[in-house]
Amino acid sequence: MLDGARRSFTRNGFHATSMQDVLTETGLSAGAVYRYFRGKDELIEAVASEAFADVSAAFETAAHGAPLRPLRPLHEVLTEVLDAVLRKLAEKAGATDPQAFPRLVIQVWGEAARNEPLRRTLNDGYSRMRGIWGKLIEDYQKAGQLRADVPPDRIVRTLLAVIQGFIIQRALFDEGAGEAISDGLRALTTMQA
Amino acid sequence: MLDGARRSFTRNGFHATSMQDVLTETGLSAGAVYRYFRGKDELIEAVASEAFADVSAAFETAAHGAPLRPLRPLHEVLTEVLDAVLRKLAEKAGATDPQAFPRLVIQVWGEAARNEPLRRTLNDGYSRMRGIWGKLIEDYQKAGQLRADVPPDRIVRTLLAVIQGFIIQRALFDEGAGEAISDGLRALTTMQA
Repeated sequence: MLDGARRSFTRNGFHATSMQDVLTETGLSAGAVYRYFRGKDELIEAVASEAFADVSAAFETAAHGAPLRPLRPLHEVLTEVLDAVLRKLAEKAGATDPQAFPRLVIQVWGEAARNEPLRRTLNDGYSRMRGIWGKLIEDYQKAGQLRADVPPDRIVRTLLAVIQGFIIQRALFDEGAGEAISDGLRALTTMQA
Repeated sequence: MLDGARRSFTRNGFHATSMQDVLTETGLSAGAVYRYFRGKDELIEAVASEAFADVSAAFETAAHGAPLRPLRPLHEVLTEVLDAVLRKLAEKAGATDPQAFPRLVIQVWGEAARNEPLRRTLNDGYSRMRGIWGKLIEDYQKAGQLRADVPPDRIVRTLLAVIQGFIIQRALFDEGAGEAISDGLRALTTMQA
């Protein structure tokens, strides 16, 4: 059910997709669908939450996987997140369209901009991610690798911005986004004054 | 005309906004509007191109403003772009809602994901920005500040990702995004191995 809804939404966007489109895509009866979802808004919320949970899980796994000592280069840890998001893309979208999942994520952001409850849901998950990554960043600060005069949360937000930008570039431009950003981050985190 | 269309689209998204909503918002007659735009798609394209041009101009101005010698810290140059985008937000949105412009940008991305001609337009502008910033990044590489074994375009894409992520955080989460990301980038570009 969610698979079919996700496919329909990814193809045409949340607003141009009707419940009828979703029924056609899934081959389910209206009765079957309405047993679980009261309407399109609930279906959007379910698809959106799932997409957010996928990205969020990739972030958390990478944070927990980074060992305390020796600290791995930060760009490597971020590259793991990008890779995990990419794998998720491939799984969710099937082999046919690697841009489907990032496009869905953009739809979710667009919907969240106008839908207060969805925005709150995203905000909660985002705060949680920031907390987990904040602890990781503190380790780099304690080790003297990251300057200590910048609050860890600000560094986390910058890394999250990189991932968000990666999703946009992957959705709209090309498939090389992952490699490009991983390499670019390697260069930026090894700058010489 | 474009101001009213932008306001309507920002509030409700491209798809939930009808031509009638735009007419009501602008106070113009259908005749006046249809003289310039054949329909909603053309209006979306005009609003989207304008939003993209604004972000793009901020990027290009900052690139041209960065003097060759001495090279300014890269995070400062990026902070100028963030500031310019913020100023643009404020101008476009009026004093009432600083999140309006970034929300419109997210709408544009969402639309571009499903609209091939718009995606091509964005892609062209994006390639141009990458070209201009590529030359700037080469200067940092020649000066030994950025490692030379990463193609400049990959570093540019990473910086663009930071700006894209900033727009999302500003639209969906809070107004502190600009400061956070500027500081975070300062920390990342001064890492110690």
